[in-house]
Amino acid sequence: MAEEAQTRRARAGREGRRGGRHPGTAPAYITRRIPPYEMLSEEALVLVEQQADRILEEVGFEIRGDQEAVGLFRAAGAATEGFRIRPPRGLVRSIIQASCPTSFVQHARNPARSVVIGGEATVFAPAYGSPFVTDADRGRRYGSLEDFRNLVKLAYASPWLHHSGGTVCEPVDVPVNKRHLDMVLAHMTLSDKAFMGSVTTAPRAADSIEMCRILFGADFVDANCVILGNVNTNSPLVLDGEASRVIRTYARANQAAVCVPFILGGAMGPVTTAGALAQCFAEAMMCVALTQLERPGAPAILGNFLSSMSLKSGAPTFGTPEPALGYMAIGQLARRLGVPLRCGGNLCASKIPDAQAAYESANSMWPAFLCGAHFILHAAGWAEGALAMSYEKFVMDAEQCGAFHTFAAGIPIDENAFALDAFHEVGPGKHFLGSAHTMRNYETAFYDFELSDNNSYEQWSEEGSKDIVQRANARWKAMLAAYEPPPLAQDRLEALEDHVARRKSEMPDAWY
Amino acid sequence: MAEEAQTRRARAGREGRRGGRHPGTAPAYITRRIPPYEMLSEEALVLVEQQADRILEEVGFEIRGDQEAVGLFRAAGAATEGFRIRPPRGLVRSIIQASCPTSFVQHARNPARSVVIGGEATVFAPAYGSPFVTDADRGRRYGSLEDFRNLVKLAYASPWLHHSGGTVCEPVDVPVNKRHLDMVLAHMTLSDKAFMGSVTTAPRAADSIEMCRILFGADFVDANCVILGNVNTNSPLVLDGEASRVIRTYARANQAAVCVPFILGGAMGPVTTAGALAQCFAEAMMCVALTQLERPGAPAILGNFLSSMSLKSGAPTFGTPEPALGYMAIGQLARRLGVPLRCGGNLCASKIPDAQAAYESANSMWPAFLCGAHFILHAAGWAEGALAMSYEKFVMDAEQCGAFHTFAAGIPIDENAFALDAFHEVGPGKHFLGSAHTMRNYETAFYDFELSDNNSYEQWSEEGSKDIVQRANARWKAMLAAYEPPPLAQDRLEALEDHVARRKSEMPDAWY
Repeated sequence: MAEEAQTRRARAGREGRRGGRHPGTAPAYITRRIPPYEMLSEEALVLVEQQADRILEEVGFEIRGDQEAVGLFRAAGAATEGFRIRPPRGLVRSIIQASCPTSFVQHARNPARSVVIGGEATVFAPAYGSPFVTDADRGRRYGSLEDFRNLVKLAYASPWLHHSGGTVCEPVDVPVNKRHLDMVLAHMTLSDKAFMGSVTTAPRAADSIEMCRILFGADFVDANCVILGNVNTNSPLVLDGEASRVIRTYARANQAAVCVPFILGGAMGPVTTAGALAQCFAEAMMCVALTQLERPGAPAILGNFLSSMSLKSGAPTFGTPEPALGYMAIGQLARRLGVPLRCGGNLCASKIPDAQAAYESANSMWPAFLCGAHFILHAAGWAEGALAMSYEKFVMDAEQCGAFHTFAAGIPIDENAFALDAFHEVGPGKHFLGSAHTMRNYETAFYDFELSDNNSYEQWSEEGSKDIVQRANARWKAMLAAYEPPPLAQDRLEALEDHVARRKSEMPDAWY
Repeated sequence: MAEEAQTRRARAGREGRRGGRHPGTAPAYITRRIPPYEMLSEEALVLVEQQADRILEEVGFEIRGDQEAVGLFRAAGAATEGFRIRPPRGLVRSIIQASCPTSFVQHARNPARSVVIGGEATVFAPAYGSPFVTDADRGRRYGSLEDFRNLVKLAYASPWLHHSGGTVCEPVDVPVNKRHLDMVLAHMTLSDKAFMGSVTTAPRAADSIEMCRILFGADFVDANCVILGNVNTNSPLVLDGEASRVIRTYARANQAAVCVPFILGGAMGPVTTAGALAQCFAEAMMCVALTQLERPGAPAILGNFLSSMSLKSGAPTFGTPEPALGYMAIGQLARRLGVPLRCGGNLCASKIPDAQAAYESANSMWPAFLCGAHFILHAAGWAEGALAMSYEKFVMDAEQCGAFHTFAAGIPIDENAFALDAFHEVGPGKHFLGSAHTMRNYETAFYDFELSDNNSYEQWSEEGSKDIVQRANARWKAMLAAYEPPPLAQDRLEALEDHVARRKSEMPDAWY
């Protein structure tokens, strides 16, 4: 195993030095060889689980406007009243554990890029959902389809991002009711990595899945996960009927719903972490259980989005310690439940990719990674609390994702790694620079952040005293300039384009 | 315990909102209520320990130019030859475990600021050793005594820094052979937090301790730790005789030597993490053992400084994954040995406090904290790979240290934290903003980074689109403007000043 990790590191190391221009042979996902961090005691975890059960049993959870979903829970043994569902304690867990996979493969159209979601695997996907984009040249503006396509290309060209993501930005220049077609088409044609589909309405989710049937074949899609749909609850304790129909649409097609309570502490949940955590777990379990009631055995992902609030302004904050604690705990809860976990990665509130953005992002990514999250969304580009996608931060974050590949490999322990021969060769007070061991190992020894400047102050000054944003600006432009699309059979491409054109022609433009 | 943690958080929360201008009632140090991260298996840890033993037994360790120190190891049972010491396996560990304290108090002159070093405690101290200082107004220049005094004042005024540190910058305008007197005097008079003394020569270390006798009383100093000395090995496998005499000077006075192998992988150690780790542990153990041979029972701290190297330039890099892995492992090794651990905190290579600096710093601080380090040096201000102390980064880093206070408190779990009453009161789909639970808890709920901007894009734009460096620049100036020295009895102050004047008059100026 140590040798295998070594090989993986070596491969990853070579890849990193290619300048991030092409995914090449980088690993399709991370296989963690280090354990997750176990923060809470068994006793505390049981208390949180009991609290989640009490919230559901005593207060209940509403699926507003979807009596069919409510009926599924009633049939499974929950008390219901209107849209309110009050499952007896333990019911939701038992529904989930009876059929929900603890791990599954999301297939990419390039089989070498299919990802495992669950177990020891971690998958990094770009940020999701921002109406704005920003870069150092043009500043902040509404996202366009061109931006969307650029960001898909950048994710494809980033060796450390395993996934193409979903709404990498809102293409605001396309009618609201037709965007999803262009977005899914971009993921399918400009990248060969796995991706996410529309969740704004159930018909759009169905459209996304229909396009997968064209790309992968209908039988393959029915038997395998090829698309994810990321659905938020309306916290506290509500799932909107449209969202529940979207969840059921994905589950019915054997595709994975990502079930994400969005809880801003103090607004959509209590200000205390333990309470928000129990609520988050309760809401996410209800959504995962819904997938299993719709189609037992469908893949699903337990999500969470716990954020804290500025006491000065009420604005959401990121990279703060309370959500970090929440991540650590939800990681343990998800493992105990046996459902793959989604966390947010490089989150920040800063409007620009300054030190605030980087501290906040790292303060979010470290706990996301160490808690054992399997699907880390928002791993690159997120700025301004999800309102903007930053081109520069995208490539900066992606390099940070790269470093976690090395961290995840742990410390290989074998004779070569111990280097006893080198100590004998070098001896006290000498240096290792030219030793046989160094020569044998240095090429793959260290992860190198290409956007970091480690040169002397003098050299850095002569080169213009650039900050990392200037280097990142040059990087993403070079990546776009070097972009070449992955091959796609002409008939598939035409079938997809025809489908999109036909679907668009069936609808009038809607702009809200 | 949960209630106690809650109270601590509440207190820390109030303090954070004072604007970091005065340490007030902030905790004197962190008491961790969450476990350290256990990365390596028991089996792997035993292999690393055995490897450290083999390096010492087969290759050996030299204390060059200090036959007295070599003699101490010979008398304890090690084979020696010239300055080379080859302890049989297990000897060094048994020397340490026979008498070295697993935890001790470093007394500050204000007893409320005395710190525990070891156990569940974590202490943050500012960066150490940079010849340059830098700020946004004046750029980078050599440090002066005025800078030194400013930085001591900033550490004193930072509620989240527990310790005044040591050489917070080199006061290059003071003769080399007299600097230590001014530095120790500044720590003693401008702050009432615990501090570090000189380590450049044994007589300067003795001077530092002598000044402690004036401040604390000679009997108190003999019975209690009041000063730390941070000593580097000359890796690989060498301790310089001057450094060994410094270690022995501190130990003989019952003061704590911090024993730090400085290993740049590929230069002073192998490029592979397992080998560098075993080497680091072996060297640090030798130095800690030396303290116990000099004076059994003297406090000591096991240090480590593992860094990686840029494959492009050979320059040292920071915030990379290899040292992070090293931290996690050395944390486990130190706990098994039973000696308090020192790690570096907010390390970076960046010349300026940009996003590179912040990513790198967080990538260093997270593993330092999670590995269970007891004394985290370089927690604030470090820039340019220790060549510069940044005023802006100092206050930015200090706020990051603040967040770890909240993280360290874990998740309090009790009836109030679970907030079941609030769920009953609010119910599905409503908000918690005005609930009784929120009113009762919001003031102490969330850690607030005061230097972060969480306002809307529009408001932020109207306020000048500032980045965090601009806000940090205003912050440190306000802190210095508001600085008031802690009270010190006039006779002590005069005795210290007289001592410094007398010692200076006994020496000619030396500038190298």
